[in-house]
Amino acid sequence: MNRIGVDIGGTSLRAAVVDENGKITDRTETVNRKDLTPTENLKPLADFINAHKENAAGIGIGCPGPLDPFDGRILNAPNLPGWENFKVTDYFEDQTGLHTELTNDANAAGLAEALAGAGKGQDSVYFLTVSTGVGGAFVYKGEIVNGANGLAAEVHNMFVNEDTYTHRGMNPGGLELQSSGTAIGRIATEDYGRPVDAREVFDLYREGDETAVRIVNDAARNLARGIENIVCVVDPAMFIIGGSVALKNPEFLDLVREYAKQYVFFPDRLDIETARFGGDAGLTGAAMLINPDVKA
Amino acid sequence: MNRIGVDIGGTSLRAAVVDENGKITDRTETVNRKDLTPTENLKPLADFINAHKENAAGIGIGCPGPLDPFDGRILNAPNLPGWENFKVTDYFEDQTGLHTELTNDANAAGLAEALAGAGKGQDSVYFLTVSTGVGGAFVYKGEIVNGANGLAAEVHNMFVNEDTYTHRGMNPGGLELQSSGTAIGRIATEDYGRPVDAREVFDLYREGDETAVRIVNDAARNLARGIENIVCVVDPAMFIIGGSVALKNPEFLDLVREYAKQYVFFPDRLDIETARFGGDAGLTGAAMLINPDVKA
Repeated sequence: MNRIGVDIGGTSLRAAVVDENGKITDRTETVNRKDLTPTENLKPLADFINAHKENAAGIGIGCPGPLDPFDGRILNAPNLPGWENFKVTDYFEDQTGLHTELTNDANAAGLAEALAGAGKGQDSVYFLTVSTGVGGAFVYKGEIVNGANGLAAEVHNMFVNEDTYTHRGMNPGGLELQSSGTAIGRIATEDYGRPVDAREVFDLYREGDETAVRIVNDAARNLARGIENIVCVVDPAMFIIGGSVALKNPEFLDLVREYAKQYVFFPDRLDIETARFGGDAGLTGAAMLINPDVKA
Repeated sequence: MNRIGVDIGGTSLRAAVVDENGKITDRTETVNRKDLTPTENLKPLADFINAHKENAAGIGIGCPGPLDPFDGRILNAPNLPGWENFKVTDYFEDQTGLHTELTNDANAAGLAEALAGAGKGQDSVYFLTVSTGVGGAFVYKGEIVNGANGLAAEVHNMFVNEDTYTHRGMNPGGLELQSSGTAIGRIATEDYGRPVDAREVFDLYREGDETAVRIVNDAARNLARGIENIVCVVDPAMFIIGGSVALKNPEFLDLVREYAKQYVFFPDRLDIETARFGGDAGLTGAAMLINPDVKA
């Protein structure tokens, strides 16, 4: 059977029909307008789904967190003002009659990478995404591990060092405050004494600029410490790393691999792959929340 | 059906018959003699098992690591000189004809605590043991998560701070080097300028000694950082903490809870329980490696 994937983002809303082979066969996209309510914004997606729901086992939704995957409810996602406490699964179930599941966007992308990307065939995959933030997904025996409170793979808050900088209540020394694109820009802006973003830091790194080399190495070392911590906790068969910072800067991932090999017990068995699914990972992975063999 | 549990330790070797309710109905114990080979040492256990194997579904073994759970092989366990590369599951299968599984001692104890102790009925339990070292077990949906390389829950090496002290190739700033009984003794010996072990540190702590208060708080804070890291990676429904340092010093666990609540996203949902299974946790948990419904 087919499955429907929905990707809710701060700027755009997408839905797609995903076939039994994980291929998108039909899709729609609309702008997420701040001047409309969530239900007004989602109506074109519900209409699309109703027109394509024949032979569909259900709807999977990927959405920025924090959210409650068990209750199908968006919480106070910074990227979705006006969507607080919206029970998005109820909305789609009411509109379409299809069983609907919700997960965060990193989990959705990780599920696609684990099941149909670099992780295909692996028993356990830990997906990490490094862009403005740092997110993750733990896919064990083909399924997302949500954790008891929906916090599994919320690796942004994992302690990796003793830095004292904090922001938005995150743990000082936490992974996102040390290795995200935002963190790289923040540290560079402080060190250079002028506004510098992550892109410029990597340009300077490639030119051999000493400060940039230090900043990029620190970010890579801290991410590698996070990887070792994940090995110590669950020892996944494979890591897959995506997100713009990682994908646009392959030398960054090379550094991460180099440092991580110094920390783990079996360096030769450490497998850190690059995400390969592309821009539709979240949309396709959301659909994979639904068991294709079960008619709702 | 019954299951046989075997507990291999540096000083003693034990075997027990565990019934369908997880109760030990018969048992034997012998000294692990350094002057004998592994097979000579284990012969009394094999004899016991052969005398009690009727109606037994298999044998589960708990043993100090490192070991290879997939291959049933002891590696270079510091507590088991002369046992290097011994395929202990092969030995028992040859001697008894029963299907045999191997896991490390922390995993065995954690399985008992998760299935029949404080964790009974929980979907995911993370067990930590704090004694001379720091070990762990991740029990998910009723089964040990070994990890791809048998390293899951080998939390001793998890980075929790930036301390530079290292020993036996462990990561500097790793959990065991910061929060184990050995670590508490090492730090105290340095700070007091004379040999002080963890037991004395806790006695001094209870007397309000300033240095001891600082050392105990640091150890508790670092363990709490490790707990937050585990929450970020898998978000278990419950933590269970055992081991002599934790069990003999309830005020230590109170401090750990207090610090951990400052770090986790949902402090009110953080559930840190004390291990309650007692000295037979490892022996009983080893038996629980075997599915009682399957005749070998």
